[in-house]
Amino acid sequence: MQLGLVGLGKMGFNMRERLRAGQHEVLGYDRNPEVTDAESLADLVSKLDAPRTVWVMVPAGEATKQTIGELAELLDNGDLVIDGGNSRFSEDKPNADLLSANGIGYIDAGVSGGVWGAENGYGLMVGGSADDVERAMPIFDTLRPEGPRDEGFAHAGGVGAGHFAKMVHNGIEYGLMQAYAEGYELLAASDEVTDVPAVLKAWSRGTVVRSWLLDLLVNALEEDPELAELRGYVDDSGEGRWTVEEAINHSVPAPVITSALFARFASRQPDSPAMKAVAALRNQFGGHAVHRAE
Amino acid sequence: MQLGLVGLGKMGFNMRERLRAGQHEVLGYDRNPEVTDAESLADLVSKLDAPRTVWVMVPAGEATKQTIGELAELLDNGDLVIDGGNSRFSEDKPNADLLSANGIGYIDAGVSGGVWGAENGYGLMVGGSADDVERAMPIFDTLRPEGPRDEGFAHAGGVGAGHFAKMVHNGIEYGLMQAYAEGYELLAASDEVTDVPAVLKAWSRGTVVRSWLLDLLVNALEEDPELAELRGYVDDSGEGRWTVEEAINHSVPAPVITSALFARFASRQPDSPAMKAVAALRNQFGGHAVHRAE
Amino acid sequence: MQLGLVGLGKMGFNMRERLRAGQHEVLGYDRNPEVTDAESLADLVSKLDAPRTVWVMVPAGEATKQTIGELAELLDNGDLVIDGGNSRFSEDKPNADLLSANGIGYIDAGVSGGVWGAENGYGLMVGGSADDVERAMPIFDTLRPEGPRDEGFAHAGGVGAGHFAKMVHNGIEYGLMQAYAEGYELLAASDEVTDVPAVLKAWSRGTVVRSWLLDLLVNALEEDPELAELRGYVDDSGEGRWTVEEAINHSVPAPVITSALFARFASRQPDSPAMKAVAALRNQFGGHAVHRAE
Amino acid sequence: MQLGLVGLGKMGFNMRERLRAGQHEVLGYDRNPEVTDAESLADLVSKLDAPRTVWVMVPAGEATKQTIGELAELLDNGDLVIDGGNSRFSEDKPNADLLSANGIGYIDAGVSGGVWGAENGYGLMVGGSADDVERAMPIFDTLRPEGPRDEGFAHAGGVGAGHFAKMVHNGIEYGLMQAYAEGYELLAASDEVTDVPAVLKAWSRGTVVRSWLLDLLVNALEEDPELAELRGYVDDSGEGRWTVEEAINHSVPAPVITSALFARFASRQPDSPAMKAVAALRNQFGGHAVHRAE
Repeated sequence: MQLGLVGLGKMGFNMRERLRAGQHEVLGYDRNPEVTDAESLADLVSKLDAPRTVWVMVPAGEATKQTIGELAELLDNGDLVIDGGNSRFSEDKPNADLLSANGIGYIDAGVSGGVWGAENGYGLMVGGSADDVERAMPIFDTLRPEGPRDEGFAHAGGVGAGHFAKMVHNGIEYGLMQAYAEGYELLAASDEVTDVPAVLKAWSRGTVVRSWLLDLLVNALEEDPELAELRGYVDDSGEGRWTVEEAINHSVPAPVITSALFARFASRQPDSPAMKAVAALRNQFGGHAVHRAE
Repeated sequence: MQLGLVGLGKMGFNMRERLRAGQHEVLGYDRNPEVTDAESLADLVSKLDAPRTVWVMVPAGEATKQTIGELAELLDNGDLVIDGGNSRFSEDKPNADLLSANGIGYIDAGVSGGVWGAENGYGLMVGGSADDVERAMPIFDTLRPEGPRDEGFAHAGGVGAGHFAKMVHNGIEYGLMQAYAEGYELLAASDEVTDVPAVLKAWSRGTVVRSWLLDLLVNALEEDPELAELRGYVDDSGEGRWTVEEAINHSVPAPVITSALFARFASRQPDSPAMKAVAALRNQFGGHAVHRAE
Repeated sequence: MQLGLVGLGKMGFNMRERLRAGQHEVLGYDRNPEVTDAESLADLVSKLDAPRTVWVMVPAGEATKQTIGELAELLDNGDLVIDGGNSRFSEDKPNADLLSANGIGYIDAGVSGGVWGAENGYGLMVGGSADDVERAMPIFDTLRPEGPRDEGFAHAGGVGAGHFAKMVHNGIEYGLMQAYAEGYELLAASDEVTDVPAVLKAWSRGTVVRSWLLDLLVNALEEDPELAELRGYVDDSGEGRWTVEEAINHSVPAPVITSALFARFASRQPDSPAMKAVAALRNQFGGHAVHRAE
Repeated sequence: MQLGLVGLGKMGFNMRERLRAGQHEVLGYDRNPEVTDAESLADLVSKLDAPRTVWVMVPAGEATKQTIGELAELLDNGDLVIDGGNSRFSEDKPNADLLSANGIGYIDAGVSGGVWGAENGYGLMVGGSADDVERAMPIFDTLRPEGPRDEGFAHAGGVGAGHFAKMVHNGIEYGLMQAYAEGYELLAASDEVTDVPAVLKAWSRGTVVRSWLLDLLVNALEEDPELAELRGYVDDSGEGRWTVEEAINHSVPAPVITSALFARFASRQPDSPAMKAVAALRNQFGGHAVHRAE
């Protein structure tokens, strides 16, 4: 089918490739003239046949909000917008309402798979009405991995459900990565295990802990067996925070996901104010030596 | 090759099947007369040709200790014992020393794969000397999953390394399971996501969180979509505790693995003494209502 | 000085007593006719001499918002409103702006001390302009505990700082209580310690862990040495959640405060969905027995 | 009464002062000739009248074990040894058995109060037989803070109970310090609160979080309002680790105490191996930028 695709960065560019390979007619728009197929958002819209379907794949937050605001003006009754970015689920309802006022449908799509999705396909979780989802299904079927539809795609619920599911997916991802990371550190600290990369690689088949993330860690250790070229500094991009906030909102205990998030925060602190306070306390009551700042 | 196999429970029985299918000559001993091939441990040893290799697959702790103590008496110079149970790595050195005094070799083998190992093969991590490991390699090659040897088998280090690696494997397993579980609970608590099993199933392919454990959770939800037939009561079998203790021993922060362990402890408390204390405190300072025991 | 006091519940009522004992002229308003000094908010305002100072001590959230909205209409240029409730600090700026439009000043006051404050005085943290704080200082000086002013009162910063400080105070409180509670549970679980209440009481003087909360726990154990009459069910009232959300907002690792919050969530779950998922997983891969729901 | 005191370091020296001020006859032994009253342990013993009481106040572990081993030889039937060091409770039973074989009694005494104990008195938790405790009570009564005996002293149970109680005391201490530290960091990170030391000082009276540890933090901030002269590097001395290990041993969830311990571990890592692994994973799946080691 025909699709307008706004945002041709790392993710959007790859998706266009995969969709075209699947025989869809994709018209992309990006501010970068080297990759865009249209001169402006308005130009893109004008080149699409009604009823139009436009996939938005721009950074979450302001950029997405602005793009959808413009589309609300440019598109017509009967058109459909899909937000495939990592937007917070709470932004979906306002987006849907804005578009709905002009008769435009809305789907929020959580997209997982990273840079590997171009080749492997993307895991998809979408939220919206049954009709809208049905209409975009040819696109979803091409983007998702090969195999049974329900193993790479879910209609998770109404508007917001797709991004909610993607948020939780990423929160879980934080926990999984931290679990492997703690185990890795303990193996590396042990006297017993002398070949840590070999142990992790041996978990690739047959074990309970085998996973795609484990495969990636094995890859990384093959390139750099002691991770000597990296610093233990880890950014976060929002979904982990949102997951914890939603856990709090729903009174759900989430110690593992939260510990993983806090480990990232701590990884970025050259000198922890909290631990200064603990050092100060120990010095006060016990006369314990402190490490003076230089 | 010829192998003596002590312990024909859920794991040992299946391993005998897999080894025999791999053309090994396996003589098993178990106290259960319905499955044993020998009348006693002594009988088993007498039926093996020197130099003998005996795989011990009995419950960790006392049973393993006793079996290895008896084997130290029954076996001869040049024989080899493999402990494939979930023994604590700290017991390997004493076992090896005991056997070594009689010229008997020792390998500790961590075995992962659970009830699925019979079919999929078992992930193996072993500790011991290069010569001993080389000698038992035909057995390891049959037990491990098909595919490249290093994706299902590792010689992790000297005596103790195999069980250390298995311990960490299980610690990671605790963290992974808890990460999925927290995410599952949050999805189930949300208003947005109306089809939780569908979302988890959609993560099976293409996503960052895909794994064998996820596949199992999908299976469980297909059988019981709300897990209504289960109680949230989770046992633990030692490796998680040992992992945390070793993390402490090596000053390795392990918040995720530890949180997963504590969640299991809490799951088994019908009424938490700690939370009684917190309730008592809130009542004392704020006059907050408490829930009276019935 | 003269003060209007809106809300004469557990806290407000006691504060009126303490203020009157301190020779202030307090006119209180409450919907409960048995305790009120005025027939309505309008009546209260009409009975005060300009420039008026009105302390709001009603439940945080809607009730506070509504009361301040009404006061914005009823009061005049030059009057002053103090919100002494447990409002979220993020509500202070909107409140201050609303009042400021009519020339009315605003102070947010965090008040600690619970039911004991009537007798011991209340710890106070306030936010607002120096002029406004100066003007209300006679009230603060009577409410705070005896002793040096800076040991029971702080001008923490501009509008919002008082409630922010109170929020953090309560977050710390969660952590402190949970620390004592975990220690209590471990003492109670030990074979060695046979007189747990005696141990806690012995910490009352001289030790590093002595505190007012400890004194309260000692009190509780004197009344009920095994806390047998309580259930381990603990509510939470918002500040702990907000503290964690602000920690996330500022990328501050807060594992202790968050663990304490999650322990409360878990204390209220008769059967944890997450732990059902873990039980289901263990059953899937290992054939481990599960506890069936009845 | 007469007391032999072995070990005149920071703690032992102060205790001798306090005991002598309380009219006890204290003979101290230390390897440091400037503080010792005897030339050797044997000399000390020879100077004491039977039945003797000897308080051991040397570093936990080897030094304590060796001293008690020597005392088992030097002392006689009817004498009494008190271990007042921070020994692990599991060492008390072996010590008691060793001494008991020669008819010598044993008390384990947990001592809290740090460098302030000389002036304020020491919180005491002791384990042993009623007769032994009764006999040493004059010493305990002088060492403990003034006030009712049960507010600074507890006979916690049989041998081992004193050190068990002290271990838990210190575990709680870890949690309390971390709770204040997290709150401190959040206050310091906020835009709202402009005078963090003032806020903490204002909690000194009347608030729920008032405590001796808070007073010490206030002291530290008066000396260095931003703790600018300290590094956030915190040692640990064993009791926190033991507390977590015992919590695990008794299946007691202890997330707060454990989080505090792990925060100390992390504070000592210039670059976390675990977080390198997480960074490596993010780079693998998402092409996320990593920080290269220099």
